[in-house]
Amino acid sequence: MLLQHCAWPEVEAYLEKSTGVIVPIGSTEQHGPNGLVGTDALCPQVLAEAAGEREGIMVAPTLSIGMAQHHLDFPGSITLRPRTLMAVVYDVVQSLARHGFSHIYFLNGHGGNINTVQAAFAEYYSDYSLHKGPSCEAQTRLKMGNWFAGGRVKQISAERFGDKEGSHATCSEISLTQYAYPESIKDVGLSPEQAPEGHFRDAVDFRRQFPDGRIGAASGLANPETGKALFEAGIADLLDEYRAFLDS
Amino acid sequence: MLLQHCAWPEVEAYLEKSTGVIVPIGSTEQHGPNGLVGTDALCPQVLAEAAGEREGIMVAPTLSIGMAQHHLDFPGSITLRPRTLMAVVYDVVQSLARHGFSHIYFLNGHGGNINTVQAAFAEYYSDYSLHKGPSCEAQTRLKMGNWFAGGRVKQISAERFGDKEGSHATCSEISLTQYAYPESIKDVGLSPEQAPEGHFRDAVDFRRQFPDGRIGAASGLANPETGKALFEAGIADLLDEYRAFLDS
Amino acid sequence: MLLQHCAWPEVEAYLEKSTGVIVPIGSTEQHGPNGLVGTDALCPQVLAEAAGEREGIMVAPTLSIGMAQHHLDFPGSITLRPRTLMAVVYDVVQSLARHGFSHIYFLNGHGGNINTVQAAFAEYYSDYSLHKGPSCEAQTRLKMGNWFAGGRVKQISAERFGDKEGSHATCSEISLTQYAYPESIKDVGLSPEQAPEGHFRDAVDFRRQFPDGRIGAASGLANPETGKALFEAGIADLLDEYRAFLDS
Amino acid sequence: MLLQHCAWPEVEAYLEKSTGVIVPIGSTEQHGPNGLVGTDALCPQVLAEAAGEREGIMVAPTLSIGMAQHHLDFPGSITLRPRTLMAVVYDVVQSLARHGFSHIYFLNGHGGNINTVQAAFAEYYSDYSLHKGPSCEAQTRLKMGNWFAGGRVKQISAERFGDKEGSHATCSEISLTQYAYPESIKDVGLSPEQAPEGHFRDAVDFRRQFPDGRIGAASGLANPETGKALFEAGIADLLDEYRAFLDS
Amino acid sequence: MLLQHCAWPEVEAYLEKSTGVIVPIGSTEQHGPNGLVGTDALCPQVLAEAAGEREGIMVAPTLSIGMAQHHLDFPGSITLRPRTLMAVVYDVVQSLARHGFSHIYFLNGHGGNINTVQAAFAEYYSDYSLHKGPSCEAQTRLKMGNWFAGGRVKQISAERFGDKEGSHATCSEISLTQYAYPESIKDVGLSPEQAPEGHFRDAVDFRRQFPDGRIGAASGLANPETGKALFEAGIADLLDEYRAFLDS
Amino acid sequence: MLLQHCAWPEVEAYLEKSTGVIVPIGSTEQHGPNGLVGTDALCPQVLAEAAGEREGIMVAPTLSIGMAQHHLDFPGSITLRPRTLMAVVYDVVQSLARHGFSHIYFLNGHGGNINTVQAAFAEYYSDYSLHKGPSCEAQTRLKMGNWFAGGRVKQISAERFGDKEGSHATCSEISLTQYAYPESIKDVGLSPEQAPEGHFRDAVDFRRQFPDGRIGAASGLANPETGKALFEAGIADLLDEYRAFLDS
Repeated sequence: MLLQHCAWPEVEAYLEKSTGVIVPIGSTEQHGPNGLVGTDALCPQVLAEAAGEREGIMVAPTLSIGMAQHHLDFPGSITLRPRTLMAVVYDVVQSLARHGFSHIYFLNGHGGNINTVQAAFAEYYSDYSLHKGPSCEAQTRLKMGNWFAGGRVKQISAERFGDKEGSHATCSEISLTQYAYPESIKDVGLSPEQAPEGHFRDAVDFRRQFPDGRIGAASGLANPETGKALFEAGIADLLDEYRAFLDS
Repeated sequence: MLLQHCAWPEVEAYLEKSTGVIVPIGSTEQHGPNGLVGTDALCPQVLAEAAGEREGIMVAPTLSIGMAQHHLDFPGSITLRPRTLMAVVYDVVQSLARHGFSHIYFLNGHGGNINTVQAAFAEYYSDYSLHKGPSCEAQTRLKMGNWFAGGRVKQISAERFGDKEGSHATCSEISLTQYAYPESIKDVGLSPEQAPEGHFRDAVDFRRQFPDGRIGAASGLANPETGKALFEAGIADLLDEYRAFLDS
Repeated sequence: MLLQHCAWPEVEAYLEKSTGVIVPIGSTEQHGPNGLVGTDALCPQVLAEAAGEREGIMVAPTLSIGMAQHHLDFPGSITLRPRTLMAVVYDVVQSLARHGFSHIYFLNGHGGNINTVQAAFAEYYSDYSLHKGPSCEAQTRLKMGNWFAGGRVKQISAERFGDKEGSHATCSEISLTQYAYPESIKDVGLSPEQAPEGHFRDAVDFRRQFPDGRIGAASGLANPETGKALFEAGIADLLDEYRAFLDS
Repeated sequence: MLLQHCAWPEVEAYLEKSTGVIVPIGSTEQHGPNGLVGTDALCPQVLAEAAGEREGIMVAPTLSIGMAQHHLDFPGSITLRPRTLMAVVYDVVQSLARHGFSHIYFLNGHGGNINTVQAAFAEYYSDYSLHKGPSCEAQTRLKMGNWFAGGRVKQISAERFGDKEGSHATCSEISLTQYAYPESIKDVGLSPEQAPEGHFRDAVDFRRQFPDGRIGAASGLANPETGKALFEAGIADLLDEYRAFLDS
Repeated sequence: MLLQHCAWPEVEAYLEKSTGVIVPIGSTEQHGPNGLVGTDALCPQVLAEAAGEREGIMVAPTLSIGMAQHHLDFPGSITLRPRTLMAVVYDVVQSLARHGFSHIYFLNGHGGNINTVQAAFAEYYSDYSLHKGPSCEAQTRLKMGNWFAGGRVKQISAERFGDKEGSHATCSEISLTQYAYPESIKDVGLSPEQAPEGHFRDAVDFRRQFPDGRIGAASGLANPETGKALFEAGIADLLDEYRAFLDS
Repeated sequence: MLLQHCAWPEVEAYLEKSTGVIVPIGSTEQHGPNGLVGTDALCPQVLAEAAGEREGIMVAPTLSIGMAQHHLDFPGSITLRPRTLMAVVYDVVQSLARHGFSHIYFLNGHGGNINTVQAAFAEYYSDYSLHKGPSCEAQTRLKMGNWFAGGRVKQISAERFGDKEGSHATCSEISLTQYAYPESIKDVGLSPEQAPEGHFRDAVDFRRQFPDGRIGAASGLANPETGKALFEAGIADLLDEYRAFLDS
């Protein structure tokens, strides 16, 4: 159930039955020579939309631009400063909370968003905690889950790619986008097969260490068949976690 | 050419040929009983993506959440505060400018965004103007166009809907989404046929004046056939304006 | 009735009779070789003060510095960043609202302020709209009018200057200041007689395109006699619009 | 020499001879039953303008709204939050510095502005100090002087009013406005003759302690004759201090 | 080597030999009935100061107040909002970087700080990454380590406390403060012996779930002897990690 | 009574008896060749802690980093931007106020903090003053005192050092740190004996004028014996002022 495709009376009716919502959040950033710039937004989006359709869960529009400062030396990457992303998350939460959404689940596709989104949650709660009195408890529960960290997904990643999975432009995320967007599969060679691992600071430092943008991944192993398996696994993981969240 | 579906070397290659980009920007807000909450984001998105595909223009991911404070008393509406939206536009511009995009065209679907986005442009230019010296001229041109204000589009709106078009939940924008998303057409009655006109302040004031969310529109007149005509007209208007912008 | 010249009990007494106030807002920026740097602040100020005196309307002190980033390559121009101007408007509104002013009319003299001031209004309303409950409706109406856009004023501009009026350092605004400040009339030649039209980005770009600061105006046609006519027309336009606003 | 009444070529010519400028800064706040709401802005304005005219010093438009949070329980008082006022001062300084003004003298009329304006100066310098390298020294000198603290002015205050001068709505500042704006002299009784002294926090606390708005002042002693003496003394004090500042 | 106890020429001399520095960062928040409010700041402080003294490493003053919004319903807890803490970390980093410190190691004592401090690091790097050119690489490496997560420390915690360690007001952190501040050991009973585990949102929610402030910990098991072991282990862990960081 | 060394039930018990608290606030900045970088934080800390211990007054952790932009050209100096320090003070005040602390006394050790901290107080009060109604009075009293400005302390400074005291790296503050931290006394020669006086702007300007960091001080006269006298005097001054504050 896509929020964008509802009229407001449908949202009103939904809130009578459920006060949960999924907000896909990702990033727009390079994912190596064969990964899509939109990978981190597209992955949670396709999983959330499919789960939402199957189970009648409201899915908000994807926050497609995240915190990607370290990728900016590669063309096409777009970042929000952490403080900007925090403000976006804050305003989205406050808007949804006003309508009575009590459980807001951010399905995340980008490791680089985690700290900032969690800091935004704390900023939101701070505005309650710093006051004393009957109206100073937040009525809204916030949770961020990472699609790539669910149990079923991780098992498939481990089985299919083992230590070639990597940590950026991973075989799994590229596989999922290949399944979801087969027309956008890139036929390019990757050298070396597996990219180096390491830490990074800013964008120039990142590109010096990771010249084609991948970290630790043999991204050429990605394939749409594994993508299909990950798609089903990701939906199942998400539904498990979302239901547990609703019950909390 | 969707930025999200490119790998970075494709973006690099694109920049060799063109340094223009279209950024669809909209809003997530009620559009009356038969309009989609996502109307203002979906309209510029479908037009930009079609134009981009036909002409090989790079299209960034849609900024789906805009400045919609006045709609918040209707379930499903989400707003960014003006200062948050300004920060988002600023960061997106700065990111794209870093890659060498010299002409950034925001295709807008929401009247309520206009002031804030223009203020964001001025904020961006201010950071150049407040310094003196050789590097203090911005190399990036920014423009915002409204899909609903192009010549061809306005002619169709006038011909088909006349003074029943309205100014929110307009017949035209609902028609366009009906064409683009026929499975989401709402079969609901509207009473009165045409909503009242007026001005508004905050969300409570808005809903008091416009109880079902429409302003001045007889939104029930919307139809997918007109949507198809608007789709073609919107693409043509956009391409004209974008090309003129590139030449500036 | 100048707020600055009242003692607080007089303001208290005024509020018993009326809860409307006019806030002149302008800019401090170059207006070509024969226009005053203060034109955009002085014009709304003289009109508001005269109207206020004639009709007993409270007039707040002029916000003389606006959003003028594009003029900064000409000596004497001063800007507030958009976000600063937004904060100023917000705080002024909140202060006046606290006293019970229910209708705050900003009489504006600078096109470049419009987007930012409107964004500030939306920021103010957002703080109400993002909460739900009995106290979440703003009790204050905000309106910005441009002195140069009133019906009587535009008619005079058209009759006297036609297509030589221009859009910056216009014949009309310079005429009005010449009437109001005859001792400051500049006796300088202008070449070309009429300045070019165009769009601009930052300050360096502006000056390159508009070397003497004028846009589209044959500012040498300005004369204090027309200024006197504009003065009376501007007062009448303002009073009409202000009264209609009070009745809203 | 009023910046608002110059055309930009006159400012350019001025900068050939002098790079100093005076910026009057005040407040819009209650000053008791017989003091003007604009007292703190009007006093520095009339002194700066007179000094500027006599000596050909450039005088910027007055920043009429300052930090007056504690006065907000009295009708007509307007405040900028400290962070807003800091941003205003910052932007004004940066604008003037861009034109080559090397000595910016803020002539202040409101004790409540002092901390905030000084903090703004430190904010401006911080942006230089936090970087290292050849361009990291500010070329602009900033100084704030209080018109009421000059030697000649304080002598007159002491002679004429002694311990009845007070610290808000002082006999001296009201005298100066009575001289400058004789048509606005208020004929009201004050009881008690001399207001209490004390400290304050927020606006409600202020009004509880100082029910008519005065602090420590027997404001009824104010008279335009003393105002005239203060006017001349204030100009002389200002010119002394400004010249010394230019030589620093 | 305490920065606070050096004179600046000693810092200058230090920088000739090393450009690394340790910044202890903690929190001021309740730690249950027998834990110190300062636990999270005191632990990294005593470890950093001891390590600094033994090895001649520069140790900056402790940032004693962190992000502790969830503890505010217990008296004595103090929080910085996430955005405030981010600004603090940013300014401290920029100050140290200006002096040529190339490796800044934050030794953290509070899990609740992690997201915010990492977001601050990203904010710092963003200001480099969003620009292009020769000076757009940060010369400063930033790292945050948690004293309680080092290998030797975790081994002791596991051996001594096993699953009674808990996650707030842990046996280990209280042991360390008991060793460091034996005069402040609290002789209080705890009921239940082991606190519940769980998740939390704001301060009211936190206290409802964790009535005495502990999470999962049998804090009464804490003892100064284990504290001594943790002290030595913590120093050794820190030195290992700091040296590895310097070599990076 | 150190807040950091209390458990929360002790703070709760304290609040039954007293709702006052002392917050030491200082700076981390060069203090000449023989002064400690931590001087301005250490001085108020040792005084507050001793006073707190003797009289059972709650003492919060020291805010060790202040507004020190002008010292940044000397290694080891760390600054918060004024706006950052304002946010820190604001959040600390709001946290303490939530617990019911009604009198928050900041004992300050750095002249450069004064304006910014006072601006932060005004920011805090503004949030009350800008609203109208029963809950719009702040229940918390804020005061900042400077340890070096108490009557007993100033008398000792005058007697022992006269016009050699100076205004930065003063004989008195160095004496106090020599008494408190005898192991950190620096044995260095100072040339000239007494540093020049003057004003400063940013960090580069400061160091040009004051090459070894001292302003006006013959810091070599500092001695721990005077430090001991200042220690006792400072405690007595503090207790007097704190008690008077509590009674206000």
